[in-house]
Amino acid sequence: MKKAVCLLSGGLDSTTTLAVARSEGWDVHALTFQYGQKAALEIVAARAVCATLQICHHKIIELDLRQIGGSALTAEMEIPQQRPNPAVVPVTYVPARNTILLAMAVAYAETIGSSDVFIGVNALDFSGYPDCRPEFLEAFERVANLGTRAGSEGRPFTLHAPLLNLRKSEIIRRGIAFGVDYSQTVSCYRPDERGTACGVCESCRIRRHGFAEAGIEDPIRYA
Amino acid sequence: MKKAVCLLSGGLDSTTTLAVARSEGWDVHALTFQYGQKAALEIVAARAVCATLQICHHKIIELDLRQIGGSALTAEMEIPQQRPNPAVVPVTYVPARNTILLAMAVAYAETIGSSDVFIGVNALDFSGYPDCRPEFLEAFERVANLGTRAGSEGRPFTLHAPLLNLRKSEIIRRGIAFGVDYSQTVSCYRPDERGTACGVCESCRIRRHGFAEAGIEDPIRYA
Repeated sequence: MKKAVCLLSGGLDSTTTLAVARSEGWDVHALTFQYGQKAALEIVAARAVCATLQICHHKIIELDLRQIGGSALTAEMEIPQQRPNPAVVPVTYVPARNTILLAMAVAYAETIGSSDVFIGVNALDFSGYPDCRPEFLEAFERVANLGTRAGSEGRPFTLHAPLLNLRKSEIIRRGIAFGVDYSQTVSCYRPDERGTACGVCESCRIRRHGFAEAGIEDPIRYA
Repeated sequence: MKKAVCLLSGGLDSTTTLAVARSEGWDVHALTFQYGQKAALEIVAARAVCATLQICHHKIIELDLRQIGGSALTAEMEIPQQRPNPAVVPVTYVPARNTILLAMAVAYAETIGSSDVFIGVNALDFSGYPDCRPEFLEAFERVANLGTRAGSEGRPFTLHAPLLNLRKSEIIRRGIAFGVDYSQTVSCYRPDERGTACGVCESCRIRRHGFAEAGIEDPIRYA
């Protein structure tokens, strides 16, 4: 089995991506970053997801993006209940987040002798983040291949984004078919201390809409 | 004065780059990463360099690349005295290092409202790292512009690599002209506890050759 690295936040999309990668027969190495305000909750979710999907390799890396700030997710900034203007990038955008996480993922992949990195980005039912677009992923693949020993020595990296063009409802159906237990996943931008989702933030709204469209009950509790 | 972010390791090249950026009239925000085995020594050097060059903004970010490993600089691996084969990437290569550092630098630049990032890479007198090549920098600039809010909203980033095509001796002459005190800089891959350079590792050899070629005495002490 060939090794692949899969970015795993413990959210709906990355968990489904992990399940897809496993179903394709990869020896999946999940990679979770401890950053920002929801860190503890997401680590618990990511661990539970790996247990359920029988992923033996799960690396958790500390990378405190609060050192950079600039986002409602990593700085002292209020997370709005609704997205004010769908035409602009929301305040929950974390500066260059996917560039940073993919750079770390590629570094980790190179270290363990893997040429494949999975990321759960989705360009349909998403929040308008620039680093979820296909052209960004293509450009990053080029960087990974020019900026690494593996790439420069002819072992190129491939970025896999199996959810890129799926609707949220399709993602959920696929995940369930591949054994995901969505009660373990965390989507909310502002859960309470016990981890209960607010139900109204952008991320909750996209999730709830997806379950509704799929005709499946969302197994998590909302406030 | 326009803001620019400058990656600063406390080594010869990044220190010179900082001096060049300052001489061009930028409001320079130096950015240093605490990672790997020489961390403490490099932070001291970076702080001293900023004091001498009167750089008021100096951010130090903790990013422990030992969590990834894969390099003689970040894992328990011996640093060779001489580079065994000039045709291959040496063991001191840190997986995807410049991709990671540039991603963080761009995130920081976006946060402080800057569109310009300086990096001290050099493609002439260097150790053969793939992420020091001009095509890598071009590809990364594209990633930065596709993967950030600033880039996607029409405030594109520019990467500046003012040393890219200079010989080491030219870098040193330029640095001295712009006020660098090279006694403050750290180049050695394996300094002793007191910070004394070994004099024989790849990095020391490139540095010594540069000073010799420039006809200038290297102000640091060697073992």
